[in-house]
Amino acid sequence: MNSEQIQVIKNIVASGRVFTDEQDRYSYSFDASFGTYLPDVVVQTKSVQEVAEIVKYANTAKIPVYPRGQSTSLSGGPLPVQGGIVLDMSVMNDVLEIDEEDLVAVVSPGVLTADIHKAAEKKGLMYPPDPSSSHVSTIGGNLAENSGGPRGLKYGVTKDYVIGLEVITPEGEIIRTGGRTVKNVTGYDLTKLIVGSEGTLGIITKAILRLIPKPASSKTAMAIFNELVDAGAAISKILSSGILPSKMELMDQASIVAVENYEPCSLPVDAGAMVLIELDGHPAAVEAELAKVSDLCKEVGAREIRIPESPSAQADLWKARKLVSPAIVRIKPTKISEDATVPRSKIPDMCQRLEEIKKKYDLHLVVFGHAGDGNLHPNIVADKSDKEEMRRVEQAVAEIFEAAIAFGGTLSGEHGIGIMKAPFMEMELGKAGLDMMKRIKQSWDPNNILNPGKIFPAPGQKLVLTE
Amino acid sequence: MNSEQIQVIKNIVASGRVFTDEQDRYSYSFDASFGTYLPDVVVQTKSVQEVAEIVKYANTAKIPVYPRGQSTSLSGGPLPVQGGIVLDMSVMNDVLEIDEEDLVAVVSPGVLTADIHKAAEKKGLMYPPDPSSSHVSTIGGNLAENSGGPRGLKYGVTKDYVIGLEVITPEGEIIRTGGRTVKNVTGYDLTKLIVGSEGTLGIITKAILRLIPKPASSKTAMAIFNELVDAGAAISKILSSGILPSKMELMDQASIVAVENYEPCSLPVDAGAMVLIELDGHPAAVEAELAKVSDLCKEVGAREIRIPESPSAQADLWKARKLVSPAIVRIKPTKISEDATVPRSKIPDMCQRLEEIKKKYDLHLVVFGHAGDGNLHPNIVADKSDKEEMRRVEQAVAEIFEAAIAFGGTLSGEHGIGIMKAPFMEMELGKAGLDMMKRIKQSWDPNNILNPGKIFPAPGQKLVLTE
Repeated sequence: MNSEQIQVIKNIVASGRVFTDEQDRYSYSFDASFGTYLPDVVVQTKSVQEVAEIVKYANTAKIPVYPRGQSTSLSGGPLPVQGGIVLDMSVMNDVLEIDEEDLVAVVSPGVLTADIHKAAEKKGLMYPPDPSSSHVSTIGGNLAENSGGPRGLKYGVTKDYVIGLEVITPEGEIIRTGGRTVKNVTGYDLTKLIVGSEGTLGIITKAILRLIPKPASSKTAMAIFNELVDAGAAISKILSSGILPSKMELMDQASIVAVENYEPCSLPVDAGAMVLIELDGHPAAVEAELAKVSDLCKEVGAREIRIPESPSAQADLWKARKLVSPAIVRIKPTKISEDATVPRSKIPDMCQRLEEIKKKYDLHLVVFGHAGDGNLHPNIVADKSDKEEMRRVEQAVAEIFEAAIAFGGTLSGEHGIGIMKAPFMEMELGKAGLDMMKRIKQSWDPNNILNPGKIFPAPGQKLVLTE
Repeated sequence: MNSEQIQVIKNIVASGRVFTDEQDRYSYSFDASFGTYLPDVVVQTKSVQEVAEIVKYANTAKIPVYPRGQSTSLSGGPLPVQGGIVLDMSVMNDVLEIDEEDLVAVVSPGVLTADIHKAAEKKGLMYPPDPSSSHVSTIGGNLAENSGGPRGLKYGVTKDYVIGLEVITPEGEIIRTGGRTVKNVTGYDLTKLIVGSEGTLGIITKAILRLIPKPASSKTAMAIFNELVDAGAAISKILSSGILPSKMELMDQASIVAVENYEPCSLPVDAGAMVLIELDGHPAAVEAELAKVSDLCKEVGAREIRIPESPSAQADLWKARKLVSPAIVRIKPTKISEDATVPRSKIPDMCQRLEEIKKKYDLHLVVFGHAGDGNLHPNIVADKSDKEEMRRVEQAVAEIFEAAIAFGGTLSGEHGIGIMKAPFMEMELGKAGLDMMKRIKQSWDPNNILNPGKIFPAPGQKLVLTE
């Protein structure tokens, strides 16, 4: 952008909220994935009208616009890969209303997801989507990426709870989609199209979220296995038993050991894998299901089932699960988080394939995640200064994607495509499927100014992790 | 269409499945809404490749294509308003597979929804969406219209259970969206865009549906009120109590009387309204919630609560609810079914407004439906040969839509827009919102051949019920 263009932005926005110094722009150049990209200017946005005006101008001047929450993205969602304007939406956080009668929350994009959880729970309600980053990430980012989380197994993901949006289109128009009713079939479902479109179709400036009554009771069990494949079998068995746990999380030996080294939690470091299972609902139902789940795990060879009694002991187990990500980066500095997802029946097969890929490429591949819905998180830890190793990582990642798709699964269950998975889109969607997505993008954003460089691969684009 | 064009269709399709005689075409000229429109040719389609070939040809020759299930649409969804080709998809019904491990059903579009219910229940599973027409309607029609039903209150609507589709695009390409995983964020959510697009964006030739474990127990209560408004208050009260019934259906006095005259069911004909409430889940939870629901109804003035013990007595109550539609057409021959939907907190206000509109226009307005999610079904019964009365109906319908939108609601909760509600689209969506929908249609169907004349209003189009 030239200085005249930057001046136009300064004229739209009150002073103190436009940043052009390199050290400020640097803070907006990265996310939780790979690479750094400097924007030309950063705006901390405060009002819908202001955002609309910036986008209108950017559209006529053909300047890229990158909306951004707290940038916990694992797929490069907010990276300003073509420079231009970064809109810091995290400061637009003034609205957080819970309406107990309509069973909805109305929220600004910059509100932290954990604050929505707390506000709903205060009224006996629940906002189910619970990405692991919820204490840091904004609801705006969750909406853009359609974030999941452990409770996705029983309750679904972000999209399943969004019933209305206020959105700035790529040409700067303000539109409202859906509303405050749970049923709405008036025209195309723009709400569910925009949620998960990774900021490429519109900038969300307000959302109406559906809430549900908070379950009366919840309990956790930890099942310990000698073999990862047996843990996979237990998960399949529970799911076809008529029980739907609220969470069912897998940790393999590498992730157990990593957590125990990072912060001792009395985890079984000699186990091949452990599964954490949470059941919620009416107290009598939870007790009955807990007994059945324990029996099922034993049937497929669990060597031990631990059922912590106190809420704090339960919370400790879930904390251990949350520590996997910070713990494994202690092993090596570069973490490549994947979330290739397979149909539930293929969980044991996918576990097997991941073991093979780990051996074939001689990598630190750690497997954990939301196994109950087939949404494993194979994470590779490596050192990006070791180019030879990073090339093995590139090959292993491609092979993980191929395996997931061969099993009837998908590239991404919840992290999004961003820049890292764009080269693999056609492999999953086919040429015609990808083309139908491109048509929507082109018809909404003819100048390609909203989050350009994301989702859609450039011709011949390949995954490159070596810089 | 000229005879050459019809010959092209005959060459694509095996003989015996192409119909051009007027008496055959007449059978395909209407649905459960208004008006008759003769297609030029009808094809009973059997294979995906055949449909793709027909659509490819129709696109190049710019001939309208109208896919059709069992035509129970209440909004004109399948009506061939511009002639052309009707595709009878109800005969494409060869696939109905239940996969207990993946917890999915894979179905052809012509399969009856009730057959999916039965097949899932045989394996201890449930496909929750339950439109009242489920014994007659095809899943293809349910998908096109995003059908709801009583269980929408707790379990959501058709869209919430579709995770993958095979679709013929308006240019005749075969694409696959989503898949067999419950989490999938690979690109735009074409699955949820196509479901509910009323056959204007693609022809669904296969669907993958998510199933859930069948609840262990369910019970029904019937709460009887002297005043409709009190029934509305009871519904609001239950919903904000932390209980989420599986169904909560309202019948006003006019619908109670109509059913009792049609088929005596021991309904309280002197009551102002009754509410049928179904609770499901673990047996202990159901019992506890049933007691609480009874207390809440009494608090807002219910004069009686009936709780049938036997499953057959419970089924009788639900049968009475299903008889409302056939019963009310005995009063007068022409039924105008609306499904304007309001936020839950506005249910009592909307009941009040409907009483006022009924008096103002001196019409037989009957109120019943899925009150628990704000999806009331105000039905007007009239006689279409009485032009003066029909003009009052037109005015009353417009006023119902205005009221719903003024209360923060929507034109349609589950019946779709079709042709009847198209004139009111801009009132709800605004110019820019409607424009973004049109852009998608134009980018996918540049020749406007798929179900033309639906959803989007022609310039100056008004609701006309007088022929």
